[in-house]
Amino acid sequence: MPKVRFEPSGRIVETVNENETLYELAARTGIQLESVCGGRGICGRCRVIIISDHIPVTSEDKKCISEKDLERGVRLACRHKVDRDLTVEVPEEFKRMGQVILEKTYVRVNIDPAVKKIALCVPPPSLDYPIADFERLKRVLVISRSGELKIPLKLLSELPEFLRKKEKTEIVLRDNEIIRLLDNENKRIYGVAIDVGTTTVVAYLMDLMTGEEVAVKSDMNAQIRYGDDVISRITFTMERSGGLEVLRDLVVGCINDLIQACCSSAQISKDDVYEVVVVGNTAMHHILFGLEMQSLVFAPHIPVVTDSVEQKAAEAGIAIWKEGYLYSLPNIAGFVGADHVGVLLAVEADQSGKVQMVIDIGTNGEISLITPNGIASTSCAAGPAFEGGNLAFGMRGAKGAIDHVRIKDDLKVEYSVIGNVKPRGVCGSGVVDAIAEMLRLGIIDRSGRIVEEIDSPRIVVKKGESCFIIAHENETDTGESIAITQNDVLQIQYAKAAMYAGAAILMKKMGLVEKDLEAILLAGAFGNYLDPASARTIGLFPELPLDRIIGIGNAAGAGAKMALLNKELRRRAIEIAKKVRYVELAAQPDFEETFYSALYFPHLDTSRFPLVTSEIIRKSKMCFSKMKNHSISKKEKVI
Amino acid sequence: MPKVRFEPSGRIVETVNENETLYELAARTGIQLESVCGGRGICGRCRVIIISDHIPVTSEDKKCISEKDLERGVRLACRHKVDRDLTVEVPEEFKRMGQVILEKTYVRVNIDPAVKKIALCVPPPSLDYPIADFERLKRVLVISRSGELKIPLKLLSELPEFLRKKEKTEIVLRDNEIIRLLDNENKRIYGVAIDVGTTTVVAYLMDLMTGEEVAVKSDMNAQIRYGDDVISRITFTMERSGGLEVLRDLVVGCINDLIQACCSSAQISKDDVYEVVVVGNTAMHHILFGLEMQSLVFAPHIPVVTDSVEQKAAEAGIAIWKEGYLYSLPNIAGFVGADHVGVLLAVEADQSGKVQMVIDIGTNGEISLITPNGIASTSCAAGPAFEGGNLAFGMRGAKGAIDHVRIKDDLKVEYSVIGNVKPRGVCGSGVVDAIAEMLRLGIIDRSGRIVEEIDSPRIVVKKGESCFIIAHENETDTGESIAITQNDVLQIQYAKAAMYAGAAILMKKMGLVEKDLEAILLAGAFGNYLDPASARTIGLFPELPLDRIIGIGNAAGAGAKMALLNKELRRRAIEIAKKVRYVELAAQPDFEETFYSALYFPHLDTSRFPLVTSEIIRKSKMCFSKMKNHSISKKEKVI
Repeated sequence: MPKVRFEPSGRIVETVNENETLYELAARTGIQLESVCGGRGICGRCRVIIISDHIPVTSEDKKCISEKDLERGVRLACRHKVDRDLTVEVPEEFKRMGQVILEKTYVRVNIDPAVKKIALCVPPPSLDYPIADFERLKRVLVISRSGELKIPLKLLSELPEFLRKKEKTEIVLRDNEIIRLLDNENKRIYGVAIDVGTTTVVAYLMDLMTGEEVAVKSDMNAQIRYGDDVISRITFTMERSGGLEVLRDLVVGCINDLIQACCSSAQISKDDVYEVVVVGNTAMHHILFGLEMQSLVFAPHIPVVTDSVEQKAAEAGIAIWKEGYLYSLPNIAGFVGADHVGVLLAVEADQSGKVQMVIDIGTNGEISLITPNGIASTSCAAGPAFEGGNLAFGMRGAKGAIDHVRIKDDLKVEYSVIGNVKPRGVCGSGVVDAIAEMLRLGIIDRSGRIVEEIDSPRIVVKKGESCFIIAHENETDTGESIAITQNDVLQIQYAKAAMYAGAAILMKKMGLVEKDLEAILLAGAFGNYLDPASARTIGLFPELPLDRIIGIGNAAGAGAKMALLNKELRRRAIEIAKKVRYVELAAQPDFEETFYSALYFPHLDTSRFPLVTSEIIRKSKMCFSKMKNHSISKKEKVI
Repeated sequence: MPKVRFEPSGRIVETVNENETLYELAARTGIQLESVCGGRGICGRCRVIIISDHIPVTSEDKKCISEKDLERGVRLACRHKVDRDLTVEVPEEFKRMGQVILEKTYVRVNIDPAVKKIALCVPPPSLDYPIADFERLKRVLVISRSGELKIPLKLLSELPEFLRKKEKTEIVLRDNEIIRLLDNENKRIYGVAIDVGTTTVVAYLMDLMTGEEVAVKSDMNAQIRYGDDVISRITFTMERSGGLEVLRDLVVGCINDLIQACCSSAQISKDDVYEVVVVGNTAMHHILFGLEMQSLVFAPHIPVVTDSVEQKAAEAGIAIWKEGYLYSLPNIAGFVGADHVGVLLAVEADQSGKVQMVIDIGTNGEISLITPNGIASTSCAAGPAFEGGNLAFGMRGAKGAIDHVRIKDDLKVEYSVIGNVKPRGVCGSGVVDAIAEMLRLGIIDRSGRIVEEIDSPRIVVKKGESCFIIAHENETDTGESIAITQNDVLQIQYAKAAMYAGAAILMKKMGLVEKDLEAILLAGAFGNYLDPASARTIGLFPELPLDRIIGIGNAAGAGAKMALLNKELRRRAIEIAKKVRYVELAAQPDFEETFYSALYFPHLDTSRFPLVTSEIIRKSKMCFSKMKNHSISKKEKVI
């Protein structure tokens, strides 16, 4: 039978029968050509360039392809059978591409998933061709990875009947393993990308043939009943025998519910889902795979494994196709997990020619400094303040939370509330806004002290602590006023100083300063809600012009989707995780000094924040001049 | 740390600490040096040649190594620490070797099993070396196979505690997978080679560090209650739902009992057995792995799989170490299975410069013609006659069976009985002996007819059928005489003609004649009991001088042991199975003619058996002259 050589890979594939088209042959080698009509000669999308030969132009070719392209050998792959040896080029742009949303920008992903559906025509055995069933199948199946074709014994046992039922068969292949013999040719194949956060789990159901996102569902991580943060979860597993299994069952249940919800919404069967690609922080990762976590909590915070891990979904308790897989991106360190690798993959950190800083703010914040000379990453123990924890009126970014705050020059407060209801508290982005505004107006000084001397009914002392009232009792759902207390300011100072110190130490390690940074990318839900200007004002990260501070949304989830749609990206994720230079802040001799300097607003060294500093000075001057008109002593306002 | 380059592999390995000796380093790279004392400088066996450098001679070196060898750089590996980069050669003869018995001859096998025990010194993590547990282990472990180091998640979870318990650790590695973390350094490691015959199952417990056979046990295949031969077993699985599982459970139970018996006899724990290497015919193989067998029974007799198959022992129900493996050598065709591949491996068919024929006689006989230009194999449906089936007084080669027969010129019969008891019947080797003797003495003619005309009390007609009495009623256990009937002769004719036709067709396919054959190797239990002269006389295989007809015993079992002790031999077995040219007798146009010509004793064409023919003519002449003296008519002797 004639052979086709595909460039640029150089792979050579023999046709299985004289009716096989170039389109089918390409699909069989794992090259998914762009196509809408599915090889019926209508859409004109499945193009290849025939470079070895001049083959006749069909009427469909003529209709769909420009004169110039016809001349350089472009043809519709589905309209040409292979009647002689050919060399064919498939440029990247001719391949089917998917899109992954990275907050307003789209990342184009070449659709080349680990899981593929492949049509095969396995010739029957005969006395002249007495070859075993599996070996006959092997002879017509082109697998891309080096290494032997594998098949679970369960499927191997079904193979004889399957091959004898019809001439043309379809199988589902994952890398070099057959994971399903398909009895229905019209089946589509799906995968799920999952971002397992400490707080929230998000599942994206993806069509592995088109790259399309078919459904998205999210829910709270059910483990939350055993603690809000990673440390309390780990402690739970250490203190309670069987605790690891308890947490594992909870997150597995959560994942299964989300997969079921996605499948119901897309009206497909769970059996058509073949792979779950998961990202999460190292602790979530370890819990999901049932790995002990003691060494994560104590310095030097060593994970059991950082390389990518996979397991048969059935063994992991994940309810998809029984021979499907659960796959996790690699981790970087004890507190820089696969979710951050997902972020780095989504921003193509390994191929970036720019100097960029990626910040994922959370109880445990991760920062990476991406440069053409390498990537350095660290984790910062920011504490729960940015998520509303340890604050007098703090709450999560849920219904009833004040999420944005503006303070007018006359100290009148404007705020927005999630769900448009009466406020019940204030979430991280609201607190950051409030503190930035207080700072700009001189209500707090650079050391963080609430300037009690200012004469305003909003500045009060409650239980011996100075506060700034954002919402008066008559405005709130609880009937109690909502305020930012002196302690709240301190909590945010600690949190932002931890983040800033991490960023500053990374820059120092890489020999860079602020002006070298081309962008700061804010990943994750908090990074998305956060007002970049406010965050910059309090000195949460190095000062950059606002147009270079960009929220990129759930980049970890985007990275998981990309790894689901393209297996080469998994290899790249592993490379990224390996080449990252992990910087342990606790091991840095200058960490303390860097941290304490960053406790100031925006920083002890104001020359690092020229824009913010000039704004604060300007504003507070304006403000103080107005303040002087008031005359009520603060004492009278004590409640 | 200094590095050592090992020749001829060229592998480069870094030392883990300054105390590591060349002996330990070699072990860590999977090179098992000859040693008795275990690296204590006493036995003088662990030699290497240091080729990069002249390193000082120690007193132990001097004591154990000749002047000449010292000069060319030979040193005791256990007496030299690595204090600089070295290049070291390890010739094959310096490696630890095991021996596998192949009936009186020993096959020397380089001990390089898939399963190895490896000592490691994994440095602890620190703030300066914050590497995950598994990745730290990877850095000190040199695995021979390309591909990633793997570890079951269950063991991965135990890794943190394991690594922190002591500085020096030991693991059990199978290829590139860690299958056990050893808590006791003194543990030995074992494997079991198993020959699963249709009738008998034999298990050999082998020490994987020395290559020593520690115990052997055998038992009947418990499946026998569902039929004596392969076809009836297959039919059972097709006719009875769940039948395959029934047979699988029986053979698995049988294997587990034998492993337990071996372990008890060697006083070791089943948990120290890490691998079971199995050989068996294709049907036994398919049953063991739970594969459907319908397509085996109908032409063209296609197996589900011919390549080697492996499975976690626990999944297969095999009771050894929970993460251990069940591995089978590959099959060649529907009726040439892994047992025959074992035979071909044991006789080193791929490296033979000779022309040899290997014959495994049984209900289903397998024949291979090994030549420097390739190997051709076939299977012959000989039927059960050689195993005592379908014969008037036939029985298996068990206690009470006449296994050897000599007939004197005066027709007095001498025979031996298995177990030295009164005979109850006659087994295959006895029947072949008897018929050969009858032929030599002219009691049967070349067409197989019992010459009733001969006047002897041993030649009688029973139930209308001519017989030759071997044991009179007063000699037997049953009180009934034991005879060879005309039908018995016919059964043996069919059986031997099938075998001979297979051999003849293979020779023809390869363009060879008898004189090209340097040896005929008779494998298997029957081949061992069989008298080669008698088999040759009846024309069971091509005529060769007797000294070139060699019984090689359980070569299939020897092949399984070799594959257990050396993983490279598995690759060779796969190569052998792939390169064998399988000849399907039923598809040969000249099969019928070849078969019918071979029905004659020794053959229709006597020029193919010059030695036998001249012997028969000489003997029968002598005999007939004596016969003439008798005068009792045959009619009087009818019982």
